[in-house]
Amino acid sequence: MITALAGGTGAAKFLRGLVALMEPELLTVIGNTGDDTEIWGLHISPDLDTVTYTLAGLIDEGKGWGIKDDSFCCLQAMAVLGGETWFNLGDRDLATHLFRTERLRAGQSLSEVTDAIRAGLGVRSRILPMSDQPVRTRIRSTTGWLTFQEFFVREKAQVEVLDVAYEGAGAARAAPGVVEAIREARAVLVCPSNPVTSIGPILAVPGVVEALGKTPAVVTAISPIVAGEAVSGPAGGLMAAKGLPVSAVGVAGAYRQWLDVMVLDHQDQHLTPQLLRLGVSAVVTDTLMTDREREAALARAVLETLR
Amino acid sequence: MITALAGGTGAAKFLRGLVALMEPELLTVIGNTGDDTEIWGLHISPDLDTVTYTLAGLIDEGKGWGIKDDSFCCLQAMAVLGGETWFNLGDRDLATHLFRTERLRAGQSLSEVTDAIRAGLGVRSRILPMSDQPVRTRIRSTTGWLTFQEFFVREKAQVEVLDVAYEGAGAARAAPGVVEAIREARAVLVCPSNPVTSIGPILAVPGVVEALGKTPAVVTAISPIVAGEAVSGPAGGLMAAKGLPVSAVGVAGAYRQWLDVMVLDHQDQHLTPQLLRLGVSAVVTDTLMTDREREAALARAVLETLR
Repeated sequence: MITALAGGTGAAKFLRGLVALMEPELLTVIGNTGDDTEIWGLHISPDLDTVTYTLAGLIDEGKGWGIKDDSFCCLQAMAVLGGETWFNLGDRDLATHLFRTERLRAGQSLSEVTDAIRAGLGVRSRILPMSDQPVRTRIRSTTGWLTFQEFFVREKAQVEVLDVAYEGAGAARAAPGVVEAIREARAVLVCPSNPVTSIGPILAVPGVVEALGKTPAVVTAISPIVAGEAVSGPAGGLMAAKGLPVSAVGVAGAYRQWLDVMVLDHQDQHLTPQLLRLGVSAVVTDTLMTDREREAALARAVLETLR
Repeated sequence: MITALAGGTGAAKFLRGLVALMEPELLTVIGNTGDDTEIWGLHISPDLDTVTYTLAGLIDEGKGWGIKDDSFCCLQAMAVLGGETWFNLGDRDLATHLFRTERLRAGQSLSEVTDAIRAGLGVRSRILPMSDQPVRTRIRSTTGWLTFQEFFVREKAQVEVLDVAYEGAGAARAAPGVVEAIREARAVLVCPSNPVTSIGPILAVPGVVEALGKTPAVVTAISPIVAGEAVSGPAGGLMAAKGLPVSAVGVAGAYRQWLDVMVLDHQDQHLTPQLLRLGVSAVVTDTLMTDREREAALARAVLETLR
């Protein structure tokens, strides 16, 4: 039984490597919903969808989001009508958001709908949203607060970040099974995801940090930062805004209360002593998942540390 | 100033012929919303959309509904997820429903949204829903009550019709401009639409029949029944269920309180004496709109009766 805390693209690739090496049913993924947003009245869960689509073999590899070979006819028609078009919703992808939104409006929880989508797409691993209540990552820039998608998609992460907040986290509860999955796992993995806006919102849900601190499982994180830069996405600027060094050490610092092992890239081997001073063990391997083989190799290296 | 009461396909073709012969801005269309339904949580207005798409030059001529060359990728993806797929929603068409639904949820009226869609698609004639309140056509069959779309699309109109009701009509008000458009028109036209489920719901809205009775304009209907059969759709069975003869005489009977002129097909010339006995003048012409030329010819014949 392995439980993984996951953001979007980097997490999804790592998890795809992982399920190729284990019984997929024995994996529970706790997904970030801090990026969730509403577009065209639809509830979009970008990180949950990226993980689900990737494990279903449907992800658009080039973009890192959405469904491969998707068309954008609805988006084009929406532009003609004068609707919002800065968020790219593909035609096939839309079915997921319509399916989710209709069921949420009918009173189902996000956990229930996420499981129905997982099952519909044939994914065998369990996928849990971190919370069934809304927790929304907000980015404060010089012009005011933005939602995460406004920051990341509309502004292309090209604004100065002054602060990051997890709106609603205080009132949220961990979704059913989240705390149990952490406490009863044989191993807990923190995927190579942005510690501020992918893992941060999960940690902000009351009970999650406590569960990570109390679990008898070894807790292992894979650094999303290699050689002082995020492998993908805006993690660098966000970590700097939060006062964290942009390095595996910065990531370990954010997780130090409960982290046992940090997996870092060969290029960052020199950081090992600093990690040890934080009380975190270091495992050095190749963490750049540039193809399927390297995804599997990273997953294999991580699984070996658990033996 | 011409005001037209309209259902779907037949009405749309006639109106397309009409606007080719007049200033489109001088036409007001009052559209049926009794067929409106909710699919995937989206507000669908099939008749308003058919009229709007046709006047915008976007209609799928083969199907008589939806947008030409539309794709159905979202529908296919919805099938994989296990969602409802009996109602065919194309990808481009979806933008209209998403646009409408989001704005209705934000508090806009159906009139406002219908006008925004009309404007976005470049239609110059005014299109008014009959009411901003929900009026829903229900069909009672041997197995119970069906919504109109369940009857027409899901059951393909292949069930016995015992009764037809316009749910919500008593509490509805005519949409802004509807009564004025009838009372202030130079001519009122009732399009060749099903009198029971296309024009019937419009007439069921309080104030519409009164306005038709009081308008100084000549009120002219084009018969949707030729040689004892509906030109398209299920009008025949529905008229029979309502105790109306399936003929131009049956249509005129349903409208006799306020109808001045019935336009009927050459094939039905023998019905003229019966129409006259109902107090309705008869104009005989070719009413089958099998191509664009015939659409225009019918519109020209109708306009000539107004001179």
